[in-house]
Amino acid sequence: MNLSTSLKVRLPVLVLVFEVVMIMLFSLFVTYDDNANARLQNNETNPMENSLYRDYPYFADVQVMIFVGFGCLLAFFRFYGFSGMIFNFLTASFAIQWAIVIQGFFQFYYNGKIHLGVINLLNAEFACAVVLISFGAVMGKTSPVQLLVMALLEIPMFSVVEWAVLKYIRINDAGGSILIHLFACYFGLGVTFVLYRPSLNKGHSKEITSYQSDILSVMGTLFLWVFWPSFNSALTLKGDDQHRAVLHTFIGLSSSTITAFALSAVFNKRGKLTMADIQNVTLAGGVTVGASVDMMISPVAAYILGIMGCTACFFGYRYLTPFMARHMRIQDQCGIHNLHGLTGLISSTAGICAILLATEETYGPSMYQIFSHRAPPAGDPKLLELQKLIPGLKPGLGRTAQEQALYQVAAIFTTIAASAVGGLLTGMVIKLPFMASPSDKDCFDDNLFFDVPSDFDSGHQALISYDEKLQMSSIDTKEVSKSV
Amino acid sequence: MNLSTSLKVRLPVLVLVFEVVMIMLFSLFVTYDDNANARLQNNETNPMENSLYRDYPYFADVQVMIFVGFGCLLAFFRFYGFSGMIFNFLTASFAIQWAIVIQGFFQFYYNGKIHLGVINLLNAEFACAVVLISFGAVMGKTSPVQLLVMALLEIPMFSVVEWAVLKYIRINDAGGSILIHLFACYFGLGVTFVLYRPSLNKGHSKEITSYQSDILSVMGTLFLWVFWPSFNSALTLKGDDQHRAVLHTFIGLSSSTITAFALSAVFNKRGKLTMADIQNVTLAGGVTVGASVDMMISPVAAYILGIMGCTACFFGYRYLTPFMARHMRIQDQCGIHNLHGLTGLISSTAGICAILLATEETYGPSMYQIFSHRAPPAGDPKLLELQKLIPGLKPGLGRTAQEQALYQVAAIFTTIAASAVGGLLTGMVIKLPFMASPSDKDCFDDNLFFDVPSDFDSGHQALISYDEKLQMSSIDTKEVSKSV
Amino acid sequence: MNLSTSLKVRLPVLVLVFEVVMIMLFSLFVTYDDNANARLQNNETNPMENSLYRDYPYFADVQVMIFVGFGCLLAFFRFYGFSGMIFNFLTASFAIQWAIVIQGFFQFYYNGKIHLGVINLLNAEFACAVVLISFGAVMGKTSPVQLLVMALLEIPMFSVVEWAVLKYIRINDAGGSILIHLFACYFGLGVTFVLYRPSLNKGHSKEITSYQSDILSVMGTLFLWVFWPSFNSALTLKGDDQHRAVLHTFIGLSSSTITAFALSAVFNKRGKLTMADIQNVTLAGGVTVGASVDMMISPVAAYILGIMGCTACFFGYRYLTPFMARHMRIQDQCGIHNLHGLTGLISSTAGICAILLATEETYGPSMYQIFSHRAPPAGDPKLLELQKLIPGLKPGLGRTAQEQALYQVAAIFTTIAASAVGGLLTGMVIKLPFMASPSDKDCFDDNLFFDVPSDFDSGHQALISYDEKLQMSSIDTKEVSKSV
Repeated sequence: MNLSTSLKVRLPVLVLVFEVVMIMLFSLFVTYDDNANARLQNNETNPMENSLYRDYPYFADVQVMIFVGFGCLLAFFRFYGFSGMIFNFLTASFAIQWAIVIQGFFQFYYNGKIHLGVINLLNAEFACAVVLISFGAVMGKTSPVQLLVMALLEIPMFSVVEWAVLKYIRINDAGGSILIHLFACYFGLGVTFVLYRPSLNKGHSKEITSYQSDILSVMGTLFLWVFWPSFNSALTLKGDDQHRAVLHTFIGLSSSTITAFALSAVFNKRGKLTMADIQNVTLAGGVTVGASVDMMISPVAAYILGIMGCTACFFGYRYLTPFMARHMRIQDQCGIHNLHGLTGLISSTAGICAILLATEETYGPSMYQIFSHRAPPAGDPKLLELQKLIPGLKPGLGRTAQEQALYQVAAIFTTIAASAVGGLLTGMVIKLPFMASPSDKDCFDDNLFFDVPSDFDSGHQALISYDEKLQMSSIDTKEVSKSV
Repeated sequence: MNLSTSLKVRLPVLVLVFEVVMIMLFSLFVTYDDNANARLQNNETNPMENSLYRDYPYFADVQVMIFVGFGCLLAFFRFYGFSGMIFNFLTASFAIQWAIVIQGFFQFYYNGKIHLGVINLLNAEFACAVVLISFGAVMGKTSPVQLLVMALLEIPMFSVVEWAVLKYIRINDAGGSILIHLFACYFGLGVTFVLYRPSLNKGHSKEITSYQSDILSVMGTLFLWVFWPSFNSALTLKGDDQHRAVLHTFIGLSSSTITAFALSAVFNKRGKLTMADIQNVTLAGGVTVGASVDMMISPVAAYILGIMGCTACFFGYRYLTPFMARHMRIQDQCGIHNLHGLTGLISSTAGICAILLATEETYGPSMYQIFSHRAPPAGDPKLLELQKLIPGLKPGLGRTAQEQALYQVAAIFTTIAASAVGGLLTGMVIKLPFMASPSDKDCFDDNLFFDVPSDFDSGHQALISYDEKLQMSSIDTKEVSKSV
Repeated sequence: MNLSTSLKVRLPVLVLVFEVVMIMLFSLFVTYDDNANARLQNNETNPMENSLYRDYPYFADVQVMIFVGFGCLLAFFRFYGFSGMIFNFLTASFAIQWAIVIQGFFQFYYNGKIHLGVINLLNAEFACAVVLISFGAVMGKTSPVQLLVMALLEIPMFSVVEWAVLKYIRINDAGGSILIHLFACYFGLGVTFVLYRPSLNKGHSKEITSYQSDILSVMGTLFLWVFWPSFNSALTLKGDDQHRAVLHTFIGLSSSTITAFALSAVFNKRGKLTMADIQNVTLAGGVTVGASVDMMISPVAAYILGIMGCTACFFGYRYLTPFMARHMRIQDQCGIHNLHGLTGLISSTAGICAILLATEETYGPSMYQIFSHRAPPAGDPKLLELQKLIPGLKPGLGRTAQEQALYQVAAIFTTIAASAVGGLLTGMVIKLPFMASPSDKDCFDDNLFFDVPSDFDSGHQALISYDEKLQMSSIDTKEVSKSV
């Protein structure tokens, strides 16, 4: 029994303390929201107009993405399939619970209570997606204890930034390109910077895929691909906004996918396709349309964004990730900087352009619903006029397009700065002893944290013996180089 | 060709006879319900208010659970993946058809016809889930013929009990903890008691998993996890009741999941995680919130129920299942007594507590919708008063909370008794000759009922030769022990 | 590097040209439809009545079928899993884009623009399904370049036939048995006729499955099975029509499934089950109910259609496919003629019977909605009368049942003739040089177009060496036979 990485005490204690805290917080603060509260139903409420029916289909789709899609996608290593899939499962269910409470305090708290409905769960899943994206940066070299502690710290930091940006800076970001993808990316890079392991830069003998793990990972990609329109449209306004979000996401993913195949073939030495490209780069379009996904950007813009995001992502994997690992101490295991960072930046820029180009001519009066901060402030006579055309239009801040664009820029920098700092701090915490961090040799190996079936060892042993030979010969080389 | 287990005659004859009977019953008795009948549509019916749109989303989710979720979960054995997944497929599609007709006679029969809509299919899927849970107890040692005969007998018994409990005892059981999980569990234990095979108690050389089969099984778990809120809320009242059912199920599953990880680590010899725990115990929370899933139990209660159910389930797997196999002749292959029995009992008890604690203060007048049997009987002046607040409230039986609690207790005991007896009788039937029952040696082996691809045999042969050596040595040991 | 099959230049150039054309077409012709256009929303539009909420759930289900269902199903070969799953992914996302534009010109073009909403995406997915079915005929012996060119040609041909049949012949075909399944089948047979490779008739050493590939393929089957009701009902009228479509599809699939198991056992030499039957034949019922899926055919008719389709499909696989390969130069790799052709013909015939038997007595006045071409023409006093009962009933062509039946027959022959010719022409195009067509030896081998992981080669090498021996011995045999 490997004492330093045994989960026997660490994991149960962490979970137990967390559960006691959760039970206290739930019992003190969490109650039902109006749509889930039996006492508030009467002869004026129509059961079929319950918010459940608006939110649940999107919630269910996002659940498939989080648990099945991410889970399979992260199971791409030959000897790390259990870990990829199951740490995702553990971290996700842990993070969602935590987000229900923490986000609850920031967004759903009034009259001394967090009011719980499916809409909170949906928001909590987005917070959970943030943690899982960051997880991608450090996958293979972290223990489940480290992952839970990371979730424990990342969720509150994310919730604060989300709340501050939405409440004070007030931005348009329907698909979450800024708040979700950029935050998750730079947080993850911060963590992995602190957890830097020089020896992994040479490559690790277990950093390989198998035929089955590659197929499993593609299945994850396909589930993410299929439900991404639901992800990007889950939190938009209902009606035409959500309709456009579905269209743009689908178009962006489609153009991104065929571009990924083309780039994969052209840059492969033997003119073949590379599985890693198909598993990751095909999805870039989904992120890239995010920030402007509900706007009237026109279908062709979504098509072009998909191609641009895919191209940036592809070259990121090819050149930037190795460069960052070698020269910047940033080992980005799953390349989240390519799939979420670069694409997020393109998406944010596109969002700013779309804001600058938005006119009443294109949007009609509903422009002030989508760009709600551009709506006239309360008391403005123009507001009354608009409210005749769009009943229920809420007063805004009377911002111009240029002002809104500047606020978007501010939000981008705030988010990147806060997430990077948060990631660095979190990295320092999870680098502390007692976190069951695996040794370099045990990275990318299910055997460390799982009872594995007998057929795992056979393939494994062959590799290990090969590995030992390699290490011995490299020791020889080192000795030689020292002696020189 | 192994004559005693060949499916060449048995299976086709059974299917053929069944199909002839089904065609007769369908042609004589099955017609469309009002929402599927073109003739009943007119200028007063609104197509978008068709019941299809209320029922179909839940039906589709439950279909994924039944066919993909269960199918993958049951494919966890290394040499029994085809059988687990495909017998599930066969048994499910057989059981649903049969349930459409049998349940139809009990629940959807009027004017001499069974009236068919998606709501019947949804109910039939729940009956099918009952059969598949029971299947878990006897998996690996039964032929497809035995499974179909089991379905043939279990569906009518379940339908009678369901009808009697709902019509005469009248209980609250939205998530089906009593009628589905307890019935399925004790029925399955009854069957496996009769099919007891002493030699399997020593363990079977093929009772092992492989790396891929473990991953496949986790995928099944994830699909069940993701759609469980739809399962538990599919048959509740629409509106806030269904909303709460989704919330409670999600919360119960989440707390159950992290508890399962903690317990798995603490009780593992080397402080690692055990796949079987993650595949099964994580789901315990979904069953445990079942009986009170639509009530105002408060979110924290769902959280605690998840932990309690998970803990009971975990220790059941660890201590109770081996005990029952050794001392009670009950070999519960998949541990359904832990995942459905113990959790079902906790759930039922929690349901009773929730009923006893329910007050108009908490629920408002809609209490008489959820606890419909507590509504005042027809003619009571209080009913008229309530109907002003809740239009369409149906007259009830005027039961007190205590009375309702006693009826719940009665339903629990009735269900357990009836299902255990039914299971014993069914076991006796499927133990008859001509049922293609596999020999002890051929248990847990796809080769018996499937044409297997060539790579199956290689892993298999290695095991067999190892097995034969083992058996030879164990014979030696026995001889030695006899001689002593 | 194998120059003749390298994708390094061919694939990227094809994709690049396609993307440039798409960007031009999108920018010139594609705009939002009324439900996705912000400018058309005002105080009279209700966001919750947006067409998105009617179409998106079916769209999402069909996406799962196309990308996950088809993808897994086609991954059934041991050494061709990457190709099956990933060429499906590439071809599908390529075909859908193309169909959005081409179908758009035929069906959603007015005021000089293609108006884009989720309904177009849904239609485009059906066009995409046509391409993927045809793909099944030539799978294993085609390069991704050939597949994209096939999609490039098939989509316009399909769109023309679809448009001509719907606009001029005007038929009832809710589940697409004629337009989708028959077209796809005979187009695919046309292509494979031209691509005939005599050497493959002897069987190919890599034309085998593995344990994992069989399981993966069954998962594809299960996803298709589960969501098939959504496929068949996606484009029906809303309300009772869609409700019946769901019921019939489910019933047809269920009876088809148990029939497939029975036939599989009875015709297997050793009385076992054959995986290929379970992967394919179980689905036959879904196609067979297609043409009459929304009609009042009665549930028992759906049950019988499922059995009939399954039986035809089973014997097709057993006798017709080998016969066609040997004597008609038609190598139908996945047996699409059985699963889509024979069943499509049965379905079309059943549709004609249902049309001939339809009476106002059974359907009520809504008969003229389902059989819209039988509605009285504009100006007919009977139309006004009917419009009182069914508001919004559109004037029809006043056809009798017999006339409609003849038009259906005309549509069937037109579709088969056009698709077969189209397939032959397409086959000639993709047989041209520069299409990266694999050599006979490299068929069914992922290694040709993919960088494969190291564990692929091990199983592979064993086979290759075995294969070479076989070939050598077969050369010996030939020499011997020549010398004789």
